[in-house]
Amino acid sequence: MPDVPGVRLAVGAAGIRYRDRDDLLLVAMDDGTAAAGVLTQSSTAAAPVLWCRRLLQDGRARGLLVNSGNANAFNGVAGEQAVTRIAAAAAEVLACRPSQVFMASTGVIGEPLPDAKVIVTLADLGDGVGQASWEAAAQATTTTDTFPKGASRTATIDGITVTVNGIAKGSGMIAPDMATMLAFVFTDAAIDADALQALLTRGNARSFNCITVDGDTSTSDTLLAFATGAAGHAPVEDADDPRAAEFVAALDAVLLDLAHQVVRDGEGAQKFITVTVTGAEDDRAARAIAFAIANSPLVKTAIAGADANWGRIVMAVGKAGEQASRDRLTIRIGGVPVAAGGGAVAGYDEGPVAAHMQGREIDLAVDVGIGEGQATVWTCDLTHGYIDINASYRS
Amino acid sequence: MPDVPGVRLAVGAAGIRYRDRDDLLLVAMDDGTAAAGVLTQSSTAAAPVLWCRRLLQDGRARGLLVNSGNANAFNGVAGEQAVTRIAAAAAEVLACRPSQVFMASTGVIGEPLPDAKVIVTLADLGDGVGQASWEAAAQATTTTDTFPKGASRTATIDGITVTVNGIAKGSGMIAPDMATMLAFVFTDAAIDADALQALLTRGNARSFNCITVDGDTSTSDTLLAFATGAAGHAPVEDADDPRAAEFVAALDAVLLDLAHQVVRDGEGAQKFITVTVTGAEDDRAARAIAFAIANSPLVKTAIAGADANWGRIVMAVGKAGEQASRDRLTIRIGGVPVAAGGGAVAGYDEGPVAAHMQGREIDLAVDVGIGEGQATVWTCDLTHGYIDINASYRS
Repeated sequence: MPDVPGVRLAVGAAGIRYRDRDDLLLVAMDDGTAAAGVLTQSSTAAAPVLWCRRLLQDGRARGLLVNSGNANAFNGVAGEQAVTRIAAAAAEVLACRPSQVFMASTGVIGEPLPDAKVIVTLADLGDGVGQASWEAAAQATTTTDTFPKGASRTATIDGITVTVNGIAKGSGMIAPDMATMLAFVFTDAAIDADALQALLTRGNARSFNCITVDGDTSTSDTLLAFATGAAGHAPVEDADDPRAAEFVAALDAVLLDLAHQVVRDGEGAQKFITVTVTGAEDDRAARAIAFAIANSPLVKTAIAGADANWGRIVMAVGKAGEQASRDRLTIRIGGVPVAAGGGAVAGYDEGPVAAHMQGREIDLAVDVGIGEGQATVWTCDLTHGYIDINASYRS
Repeated sequence: MPDVPGVRLAVGAAGIRYRDRDDLLLVAMDDGTAAAGVLTQSSTAAAPVLWCRRLLQDGRARGLLVNSGNANAFNGVAGEQAVTRIAAAAAEVLACRPSQVFMASTGVIGEPLPDAKVIVTLADLGDGVGQASWEAAAQATTTTDTFPKGASRTATIDGITVTVNGIAKGSGMIAPDMATMLAFVFTDAAIDADALQALLTRGNARSFNCITVDGDTSTSDTLLAFATGAAGHAPVEDADDPRAAEFVAALDAVLLDLAHQVVRDGEGAQKFITVTVTGAEDDRAARAIAFAIANSPLVKTAIAGADANWGRIVMAVGKAGEQASRDRLTIRIGGVPVAAGGGAVAGYDEGPVAAHMQGREIDLAVDVGIGEGQATVWTCDLTHGYIDINASYRS
């Protein structure tokens, strides 16, 4: 991934939980960087989420500090004090105000964050700022992830090329509102904080909020975007400014790419599943039906077993609580209609469907025969690997 | 289980899907039997469910026919025609009207029910009516169940002893509204259909609608109750009649016993989990939080791994979308407070908690610190066994 002017990276090993690996990412950003974010809707949100929510009111950033191994969630007032102390230490290193340092933590819930270890390591990181790669940055934020996740696109604004880089971590406890655990996007484009927030909210609705691994929503879900303005063009002040059209496409592409990577790395996942629902009462209903399918353990285990068991898709449509016409319902697997008009498609060719189910990219398309609403969501299969990881993750 | 006067059982092997086992249950009931039922809310409900819905308007029954191996769901008009033909054949055997024969089917969705096989076998069953045991009856209705499920209680009405027998099947695709796939209750008490319906609806709300295995709701969920009146006491015409108090307790006990058996036989289940939520805004909110915990794959896999990972319970409370006080939240595992006041309980004794997690009966109690609402639901752990069963069930 290319550099993003105005953004410098450093990583370090604080030994928070993991041994012999980096678990701390410090990002330094130019003065004048605009910030936007989308945070978990959880009523038990983690301390750094509450901190980011406060900072976003101002929309300015000079730094971002991310740790893995401990979520600093459900630590009460002690968790909030740890955030305050770490922000102060990071501000010292970055020569800025604590209220300009965004923060995110991922890992175990309910154990005190050893902030002294973070602060000691931070002091050493100052000299290294600008020396870490994007891959190393992404790697430092991982927990049960099996690969670091990054995406990059370019666009032009006023004839000037700008870069959009994103990194993400997340693999389990993945469900919408929002869907990832942590994702960060950086650009050297000059985008005002309000415009950036509007674009991020829209892009998130079509990417991270359309994925699920296990229907479990994290206490720490955080998506932050930073625009340094180092590219030097006149600032974009309105999300609908046509000058930003290419930038918006690049931003959306980075968000969707990252979201798909999170699903592909879903805990134990062997297959990437695209669920498309059409013909629903409205888009909201289509989304509810699509998630009923994408979160159904019976659909996900059937796919793990390469079984084109569309009866379970009928079940999931039925339980979604939305309008569906039993007699106009159509189900396609890998593009092949397997059910239509209230029953199995007589004599459909099972060969291509069986071959599709053996693959790693599964397409399920359902038309519920009511209206014009549609939605697409992405998920993965449910395998023994998920059980292995989660019956033993903490211990 | 004892006889229920006015109820006679027969089982047979129609070879619908399974070989060398009974897959058909025919129940004959005395003239004047009252019927009540609670049926799936699925918008893709199976043909026999639609049939039962129609018959319940009349509230009278002379027969019940249940088959396993095929759900007769999503078979369109052909599915409805199969029901009509089978009801006619059963009415012939029982010397009653087709509209007096209730029906339920469980098994694969979306394959035509071979009704000719059912009808041929039915003709032979006539002579055997009254010869099958309750255990054989329950066994004939099973699919992935590992044991047949039955419960029995007695009560007195006007000094006359009445019996309440229930059988159930169900193991996967188990989630509320309603929760079981199939359950049938029989009594010789004389209870009017309207009163029986009111009592069944109430009892169901506290039993089958409080369990979940995988959050998946079946197209075929059916709970039916039949009261033959053979006990000979004056009929109970009002659900709140104090003469019926002991009967109501017996009915509720049978329903709860059967619901618990369904959870204990949850696909792959090794542990029976009771989730109690108190301190919620109201009972509805408590129930939503309890189900968020009971349906969380991360909570269920942690329990499978005997890990007292209460951070995942915090997560599940947070995602429920209901009010909860982070700083007043209390979590008890096996009665031991592990989290309170916004963080871990300092120095709690891990010994009893670890021992509790190793057991087969797990108690989770959460107080969310808001109000007076409370709810209890039951579920099982999520294990490799669930994946084994469902990645290969159909093929």
